[in-house]
Amino acid sequence: MTNRVRENEEKAIHPPTSRNVTVLGGGLVGCLLSIYLARRGHRVQIVERRSDPRKLPWDAGRSINLALSDRGWHALEGVGLADPVRQSGIPMYGRMIHDLAGKLTFQPYGEASQAIYSVSRSKLNEVLMSLAEERENIRLHFNEKCTEVDLEHASVTLENLETGTYSILRGELVFGADGVFSSVRGAMQRTNRFDYSQQYLEHGYKELTIPAPAAGGWAMDRHALHIWPRGNFMLIALPNLDGSFTGTLFFPFEGDLSFESLKTPEQVTHFFDTTFPDILPIAPGIVREFFRHPTSSMVSVKCYPWTYKDKVALIGDAAHGVVPFYGQGMNAGFEDCVVLDRIAAQHGDDWGGIFGEYQRSRKPNADAIADLAVQNFVEMRDRVGDPKFLLRKKIEAHLHHQFPNRWTPLYTMVTFSLLPYADALRIGQRQDRIMDRIMQIEHIETRWPELDYAALLGEAETAGE
Amino acid sequence: MTNRVRENEEKAIHPPTSRNVTVLGGGLVGCLLSIYLARRGHRVQIVERRSDPRKLPWDAGRSINLALSDRGWHALEGVGLADPVRQSGIPMYGRMIHDLAGKLTFQPYGEASQAIYSVSRSKLNEVLMSLAEERENIRLHFNEKCTEVDLEHASVTLENLETGTYSILRGELVFGADGVFSSVRGAMQRTNRFDYSQQYLEHGYKELTIPAPAAGGWAMDRHALHIWPRGNFMLIALPNLDGSFTGTLFFPFEGDLSFESLKTPEQVTHFFDTTFPDILPIAPGIVREFFRHPTSSMVSVKCYPWTYKDKVALIGDAAHGVVPFYGQGMNAGFEDCVVLDRIAAQHGDDWGGIFGEYQRSRKPNADAIADLAVQNFVEMRDRVGDPKFLLRKKIEAHLHHQFPNRWTPLYTMVTFSLLPYADALRIGQRQDRIMDRIMQIEHIETRWPELDYAALLGEAETAGE
Repeated sequence: MTNRVRENEEKAIHPPTSRNVTVLGGGLVGCLLSIYLARRGHRVQIVERRSDPRKLPWDAGRSINLALSDRGWHALEGVGLADPVRQSGIPMYGRMIHDLAGKLTFQPYGEASQAIYSVSRSKLNEVLMSLAEERENIRLHFNEKCTEVDLEHASVTLENLETGTYSILRGELVFGADGVFSSVRGAMQRTNRFDYSQQYLEHGYKELTIPAPAAGGWAMDRHALHIWPRGNFMLIALPNLDGSFTGTLFFPFEGDLSFESLKTPEQVTHFFDTTFPDILPIAPGIVREFFRHPTSSMVSVKCYPWTYKDKVALIGDAAHGVVPFYGQGMNAGFEDCVVLDRIAAQHGDDWGGIFGEYQRSRKPNADAIADLAVQNFVEMRDRVGDPKFLLRKKIEAHLHHQFPNRWTPLYTMVTFSLLPYADALRIGQRQDRIMDRIMQIEHIETRWPELDYAALLGEAETAGE
Repeated sequence: MTNRVRENEEKAIHPPTSRNVTVLGGGLVGCLLSIYLARRGHRVQIVERRSDPRKLPWDAGRSINLALSDRGWHALEGVGLADPVRQSGIPMYGRMIHDLAGKLTFQPYGEASQAIYSVSRSKLNEVLMSLAEERENIRLHFNEKCTEVDLEHASVTLENLETGTYSILRGELVFGADGVFSSVRGAMQRTNRFDYSQQYLEHGYKELTIPAPAAGGWAMDRHALHIWPRGNFMLIALPNLDGSFTGTLFFPFEGDLSFESLKTPEQVTHFFDTTFPDILPIAPGIVREFFRHPTSSMVSVKCYPWTYKDKVALIGDAAHGVVPFYGQGMNAGFEDCVVLDRIAAQHGDDWGGIFGEYQRSRKPNADAIADLAVQNFVEMRDRVGDPKFLLRKKIEAHLHHQFPNRWTPLYTMVTFSLLPYADALRIGQRQDRIMDRIMQIEHIETRWPELDYAALLGEAETAGE
């Protein structure tokens, strides 16, 4: 048995045949995937359309931040990258709710030590690029736009955006890590029987800056994700290392109160004054930014299959574009890399088998997190401000504390565990039905600490829930 | 009031401004739409990629037939075309179920006089083309492939497939009646916030011929749609005027018993012998056709919006591709024309308003028939052979007879009425819940004629169902 394990490990670390791999997209997932592949001995060419971000002035796109949570950390740890990344993250231990009067309420995400980490997207990308480039079997190519993908021959046609010349990059495997508008997926979409959907939200978003105070430090508690829930829309803010926060307004494109309806600086000022009263004093530049910064749309993309024969595979946003409300887009993409790597370790040279198992096992989880992310928008913008919702969360935390092996809140399963997303969704739905019933108990507001939860859970289990 | 009505009618028949309209696609919906538009005074250019089918030898694609039902007839009547078409249709009054022993059971579709009509797709298309061409304000262009659609300027770039020359056709309105792989929709898909999905079935289909008997007449009852339900798959056959039937085998692409698994003539012969024992004696050529005829896939396509400003609109399969199992694809496309025409009659020159109302009112109905068509596949291939299902249908027919204003079977609402599809779906779901309960009554097999249905329906209504 021990020998068998050792053999598998050997096989895992040194696969029988090293492949020439093309990874389209030098973003977060493309770089991490390449490091995983290189570790197994493959020779990787990363092709990126943009120019090298490490050579650009520092503020290009610097303000976008992401929330790294357990799945992301686990994937980084797998290649020894958690520590270098952790240095530039800021832990956020819960949500800080800002009400209409500017009053603050803190809602912890989980246990006292559990946090999600605000990291700079571009900084993290640069770190991963540099760590990829250090490997002798990874090469990075910038300013190369993919104009055609030949699925059958695992080759891609590239246009160099600086010289205008075309070249063909031939390999044995192609990975599409080229994001939600993936050109690899575009090529697969022209094959027969390819399921595909893109679904836009009726809300757009706009990024706004809360600058660092002149006196130093941060303008608000930096160890929280700040939310201004306002029913149909919301503002959120995540901390940056330099003392600033990046705010994001999620707001309807059209309608009575919408990006379309706010036309003048006076209207925008009035809107912020009355809707987010504590923002303008600390972020006076927001009104100007409102007209200068673009309004972006949000889309869920689902597709299947994710792979073409033993040649081509989609990964990350290219396979499953999710809206940002569960903070899981990057984490899910990183988890893809871990799953693919684990399957590859078991199948050796059989890339058809690897790709088949990868897509079968991963697709239900990608669908689950896509749906969870859409649902969580309603929770964040509306329910987090509701006393009934807060009580519900409190009771769930109590249940988790009392029955750690029988009850874990959905947010914790998604964010602070490696449980497959589809399982988290299913268990969460079951728990929701139980909580719906508990919340209907008369005088639940006062009676909740004294209820016999063991009996309540027992009944639910007996009822087959 | 009478004057007002007259005025509206005048306005309807003679709209204030006649437009230059491009209709992409000279198929069934493209031709019918053009006739409706021409009738309101617009000048229509129909652009078709194929060559003129009326100049081809008669047997090119002759065998594909469609089921015309009330919505289709209503649309044809609206422009006086029902009579010329009816001459070449064969009424089918119900399903003829063929069991594994070759035993036949007839299930009527509705009342004795209600029928769906088997018509030849190509023949119907040729009739509509000729009737369109007779109008002085319609021109047909063949062998013109659309290579680009300029949504903003309502112009299309065409490549003539005979001469290889390109031209630009400018107009004021463009209609995409160019089918499930619409190039107009392709152009709209590149705009922002366009929702789109394509979902393939795991079954494919293959057309097979049951020839006319040498002695004349038809090999089976020509006034029925024949079904060989076999659980996970089925064979169906529709009659043609020439004495033949067109059979279609709906069968899994892959798996234990599938298009992929039947590899040799011996395997196919054995499969038909054991699965459809009454077929080979009347259709000995089926085994050869099995290997010669292509296997086609089936897709549901949904998208939104259907229109671009006051310039461009999708119609028929281009807006809503449905699988064929409710026989409603063409009927739904024809109904689109009627709905658009009725809205246009009310809005005069305001094409932005016309398009807005057209897509808002029509989209829920298109979604409903798409979902109904997927569901009906299970009913046809599996449930129609089940005695419980037959009893259920019998009770429903009884309810319809006893309470004609309170109970109409779903199939009748979809096929023999003009009720919006979305309403039919909703009412059908409500009726299904009631029937589920009725079928659980003990000894329902014998007790059904004596039940107090007035009380049962009354209870359901009281319960808010």
